[in-house]
Amino acid sequence: MKAEIINDRVLAEKKAVNELYNTGYYGRPKSKGLELTLIEAAYLAYRGKIDVEHNGNVLDFPGFFKIASTLHPSFELKYIVYKDLRERGFYVQPGVTDFRVYPRGSHPGKGAAKQFVYVRSERVPMPLKDLLRSLNAAENVRKQMILAIVDEESDITFYEVKRPRIKGGMGDSLYPDINTEATFLEDRVIIWDEDASTALFENGFYGKPLDKQRLQLSLVESRYLMENGVINVRNRQDNVMDSESFTDIASKIEPEFLLKNSVYTDLREKGVVPKTGFKFGSHFRVYAQVESPAKIPHSEYLVHSIPSDHEFRLPVMSRAVRLANSVRKSMLYAVPEDDGIDYIDIGRVKM
Amino acid sequence: MKAEIINDRVLAEKKAVNELYNTGYYGRPKSKGLELTLIEAAYLAYRGKIDVEHNGNVLDFPGFFKIASTLHPSFELKYIVYKDLRERGFYVQPGVTDFRVYPRGSHPGKGAAKQFVYVRSERVPMPLKDLLRSLNAAENVRKQMILAIVDEESDITFYEVKRPRIKGGMGDSLYPDINTEATFLEDRVIIWDEDASTALFENGFYGKPLDKQRLQLSLVESRYLMENGVINVRNRQDNVMDSESFTDIASKIEPEFLLKNSVYTDLREKGVVPKTGFKFGSHFRVYAQVESPAKIPHSEYLVHSIPSDHEFRLPVMSRAVRLANSVRKSMLYAVPEDDGIDYIDIGRVKM
Repeated sequence: MKAEIINDRVLAEKKAVNELYNTGYYGRPKSKGLELTLIEAAYLAYRGKIDVEHNGNVLDFPGFFKIASTLHPSFELKYIVYKDLRERGFYVQPGVTDFRVYPRGSHPGKGAAKQFVYVRSERVPMPLKDLLRSLNAAENVRKQMILAIVDEESDITFYEVKRPRIKGGMGDSLYPDINTEATFLEDRVIIWDEDASTALFENGFYGKPLDKQRLQLSLVESRYLMENGVINVRNRQDNVMDSESFTDIASKIEPEFLLKNSVYTDLREKGVVPKTGFKFGSHFRVYAQVESPAKIPHSEYLVHSIPSDHEFRLPVMSRAVRLANSVRKSMLYAVPEDDGIDYIDIGRVKM
Repeated sequence: MKAEIINDRVLAEKKAVNELYNTGYYGRPKSKGLELTLIEAAYLAYRGKIDVEHNGNVLDFPGFFKIASTLHPSFELKYIVYKDLRERGFYVQPGVTDFRVYPRGSHPGKGAAKQFVYVRSERVPMPLKDLLRSLNAAENVRKQMILAIVDEESDITFYEVKRPRIKGGMGDSLYPDINTEATFLEDRVIIWDEDASTALFENGFYGKPLDKQRLQLSLVESRYLMENGVINVRNRQDNVMDSESFTDIASKIEPEFLLKNSVYTDLREKGVVPKTGFKFGSHFRVYAQVESPAKIPHSEYLVHSIPSDHEFRLPVMSRAVRLANSVRKSMLYAVPEDDGIDYIDIGRVKM
């Protein structure tokens, strides 16, 4: 079937409407024929369905591919994803997003698209702002947001991006009847009193015992307990520290302290238990509920705090999500905003 | 038993030599008594073996701990690791490195220390230069190098650092009888000839098929095959590209191109097969041998290229190693040096 490149589209002759659109939902029917995107046209050319002409010459597949690659940014990336989805049996249409994908058994005209697919190269950092804009656009029309990331060898990994519901079972895990002394040593805080240590560790899963009598707290735990009047922190010279001086020193020890602290506080207030996620390379691993340190359940989330101007380096994101999923946890990114923390769940999906 | 802080040491009375050194190998016997480090003394104080005096006052445990923390940098970190090792039944001695650890069943005077243990805080970036200096020091005296990383909640993760032997089975996996045309599109290279595509993919596991006729190559694969005269690369305007112009463009697409390229070349020359490690967040996953893409074996290594002035952020390193180990691979870091690539294997160990 004949087709011709016109600007950045390909126009196929009139009978294409019947043979390609009505059977496979390729292109958009127009009065002059069937209008195809360069990506749709490349796929149809590869399958031998159309012969594309340019300036009067019929192009072979490499010839068309090279021209399309110069006309359309990220042409190869998008072609690779389009071809993959088509070959898995999905009907795919170009949209405001890269692609709209119809659920199996459905097609344009029969039902609505289920997914918005965004194509990215692993090499190009992805600004959080872009991700949020896409997520909000998809959520507004109740579509599933899918990121298709193409690596340097053209393998595709699909991720679903969504907002999680975080619900904890810790209820009120603060202990207003405790008020105990603690010392800020070099970069951690120690509670010296045995009863307070035991109560905080056993009931709230705060800190880690230094030994049977004493409890070590992390900086975020310390500030949270300090703000809630549970501990009085002194420095090594035995001077009482206020919240401000504590925060100053903690921020020197840990440049991301304030970022982490706002997420820690929000998670505790949601009734879940955040503990360090160091072993997983994230800020926190999060338990929905810990009844006792003697029987610690599976932690459900890994949470990493990022500022609103964050740029995802995709190999790093890929590693974080893969690691989280390999230990049956969800990978959440937590973004402090003016009106609270925005959590985003990124997980691998099979299409 | 009485002991006294003198400068940054603790001197225990004479009978300590018999009661603490001869039974537990604490401290170093001196004519005046038993000299202990602050860390050894804190552990003995915690266990109620010594009462430490300072300026004539007997200190309780918190009192001694606070003073020791001001006298010795990273005192708490090191105390936590020392206590952990002692409680696992190891004899531990302070050394040029943080600790020398004796194998189970052995002790000072009976045999040699087996491990050098270096203690680090997760929060403090670790310069590669420091790591290499420590590794070389340990290797020179045939000790195992152990990194003990203490997280913000005082949990310890132990890593063994060593140099791997990388040996591949691909022999000569280049095909001097192939010489084929390829096009550098936007950010990847395509070979259009079916026979060449099939041979390179099937025999050398180069690239990924775009379809049955054509092969996509990554930038490092392309440059390697170009340098070896296997492919002639043209740009989209059909002009032949030389190695220099290819490298220039590839480095713009991928700022780490040259770093990755030198490691890719070295790995291929060692007879192994490096493929992208994107899904694992590393530069390469590496197969010892791939006889055919139809039966791809387990890949043995993840390899990440780092420059010689690299600083490890330890949560990132932790994630990389954990992910690699969870899929039964070794995590290798590859450092291009003047005389070749220095590979370092970092893996979690249980003590």
